[in-house]
Amino acid sequence: MEVFIEPIGRLINQFSKLPGVGKKTAQRYAYKIIQMTEAEAKEFADSVLYCKSRVKYCKTCGNFSENEECEICKTRRPAQICVVKEPKDVIAMEKLHEYKGVYHVLHGVISPMDGVGPNDIRIKELLSRINSEVTEVIMATNPDVEGEATAMYIAKLIKPLGVNVTRLAHGIPVGGELEYTDEVTLSRALTERKSI
Amino acid sequence: MEVFIEPIGRLINQFSKLPGVGKKTAQRYAYKIIQMTEAEAKEFADSVLYCKSRVKYCKTCGNFSENEECEICKTRRPAQICVVKEPKDVIAMEKLHEYKGVYHVLHGVISPMDGVGPNDIRIKELLSRINSEVTEVIMATNPDVEGEATAMYIAKLIKPLGVNVTRLAHGIPVGGELEYTDEVTLSRALTERKSI
Repeated sequence: MEVFIEPIGRLINQFSKLPGVGKKTAQRYAYKIIQMTEAEAKEFADSVLYCKSRVKYCKTCGNFSENEECEICKTRRPAQICVVKEPKDVIAMEKLHEYKGVYHVLHGVISPMDGVGPNDIRIKELLSRINSEVTEVIMATNPDVEGEATAMYIAKLIKPLGVNVTRLAHGIPVGGELEYTDEVTLSRALTERKSI
Repeated sequence: MEVFIEPIGRLINQFSKLPGVGKKTAQRYAYKIIQMTEAEAKEFADSVLYCKSRVKYCKTCGNFSENEECEICKTRRPAQICVVKEPKDVIAMEKLHEYKGVYHVLHGVISPMDGVGPNDIRIKELLSRINSEVTEVIMATNPDVEGEATAMYIAKLIKPLGVNVTRLAHGIPVGGELEYTDEVTLSRALTERKSI
């Protein structure tokens, strides 16, 4: 006899597909579903389908959107374009409530090791957005090797068009301690020191 | 503007209902769903509904079952009944591939603090299963205060019926070290020592 009956085993398999979820966690999730009322389980399943069917990508910036063009692209002027790797980075930036420009989601970064070249991410789409209205492109890819390389690559393409290209500052995190700051970050913080 | 668009926010809320899942984890799960193909997302949602609609409780033992009576009750002789708190404890026992008797799932333990009395768990149903065929009832509730109290309570009811009542042994876990064994467990291991 199988340890799990088939409907439970099948659900455990599905939950195991979620990031960071192993058999044991998937099992706990499956038990939770069984304990739910019919209505709750239906609401759960429906919201999966609803999310999948409703969420598209904005044709302009590539961010998640319910419509062809996202709310940000619709309502803001594209004087500043903030370039990020993934839609979740847009959410991180938006939580600041400080940045008032638009975004451009690359959906990846250049990574020769993983076979991702410049044509595999949305660089062409970014270039086609550069016009006289755009005054600044902020490169907000992650501060890792691929993110840096991608930022440099894009900067080289955009600068000749006469647009100011900037990069998020590196340095010691606010509230961090010198002692626990890694050497690369500390070195960058020293190099990029500012007069006060 | 909301940070998340509505379909994503709704799905994050649903995932947050799973045990141990906070907003951040729910967000990662939601992104995974968005990255899935339509077919994969449908399979995921379907398996939730399928599991919820197919999994019932066995009328005899209270374990998860697709039919009115579970496979274990159908195919094994009820000479030994192993009493556990929850269906997942049945799975833990079954993984041993050693126990050949049947189960009785209480769906809870007596816990006056939480307002759970003897009539709130499946004790009556257990007593009604005791007949001449039953030779042993194994109390396999958890070794915590409520589990111990429930085991004692049930033992007192069953012993007068002339049935042998046993309890899983307490002691040092196999592979464990004396140094790291908590005092209560070590004390039980000492009290219940055996001649070799």
